[in-house]
Amino acid sequence: MARAKEFDPDEALQSALELFWARGYEATSMSDLVAHLGIAKASIYGTFGGKRELYAKAMRRYLELTDPKIVEELSGPGPVLPSVRGLVERFIGEAAGDERHWGCMVVNTAVEMADRDPELARLVESSWSNLETALTSALLRARAQGELSESADPRALARLLLVFFQGVRVLARTADPGVRLRDASRVLLALLS
Amino acid sequence: MARAKEFDPDEALQSALELFWARGYEATSMSDLVAHLGIAKASIYGTFGGKRELYAKAMRRYLELTDPKIVEELSGPGPVLPSVRGLVERFIGEAAGDERHWGCMVVNTAVEMADRDPELARLVESSWSNLETALTSALLRARAQGELSESADPRALARLLLVFFQGVRVLARTADPGVRLRDASRVLLALLS
Repeated sequence: MARAKEFDPDEALQSALELFWARGYEATSMSDLVAHLGIAKASIYGTFGGKRELYAKAMRRYLELTDPKIVEELSGPGPVLPSVRGLVERFIGEAAGDERHWGCMVVNTAVEMADRDPELARLVESSWSNLETALTSALLRARAQGELSESADPRALARLLLVFFQGVRVLARTADPGVRLRDASRVLLALLS
Repeated sequence: MARAKEFDPDEALQSALELFWARGYEATSMSDLVAHLGIAKASIYGTFGGKRELYAKAMRRYLELTDPKIVEELSGPGPVLPSVRGLVERFIGEAAGDERHWGCMVVNTAVEMADRDPELARLVESSWSNLETALTSALLRARAQGELSESADPRALARLLLVFFQGVRVLARTADPGVRLRDASRVLLALLS
């Protein structure tokens, strides 16, 4: 029988996620991981396959924790636009109140890694694609229910929201983005009324 | 008399700018700089003060090369909205055609460095502030000239454009963002007509 592992891989993965999310890939060294996770380098390699593989696993976990919530928020019965507006307001509120300035791990990964790591680029794309699909589906229902005019283009609107959200999360990496983000979202929300 | 330097500091700074812009701060090592700039480590320290100082100088140069162009584009006489729309279209075109996927050094710096380097955070903020001011000024003129309705809020619109542009540049770091960006900008531009 193999010796029992002395750490919980799930907790270790969560710790790694937080470190990578806060600092990014390159600024996180293997020694940082050893110190932060409290486990030996050999265990990190043995359990996760190394820093690069650990980052990809942390990213997958991040998406599992964040993406389904968005789909649920946008998939309720009844009027749709209040949910879409609620999502915009949640993102703005999270960015404005993001005192750790961690932003969003998808944006951080897109900017730091997407151009040189095809697997991470695919994870970024899958998250954006899920967000775009959930928003498009919601806005199609909004149009069918008469909440949006017949001439509205749900997919194009969803894409504008997608791009806007990535910008929101860039500003979330900086100090006090709240006033700018609230002004910007007020104009954007006028498109959804 | 000091020995003549065997390299052009201006060319070296431009090379450093391109390397940092493409790869980011952490992924660029001192050896990468030595190889790419073709000058000795001691010269990099002697002339620029080290990697961190070189990055800040490269960032200042980037802003000098990009920000004034935007102010000029938005400050012509006559109708204003065509210039604003032209700026949106230029940014979308640059991102869609960005085959190197370098994106924008301001966004890359905001995401990678703004939360832990106050000087770089100030440079990011100064660039955003310039962009916001130039856009607000242009949109105020647009409103005064009757190109925007009296109820339009030029500063809030400028902030929406600012946030949108940062999102555009996140997508520019990934493959083929063109279709999404063109759809998104089409909806956004409807606010400016």
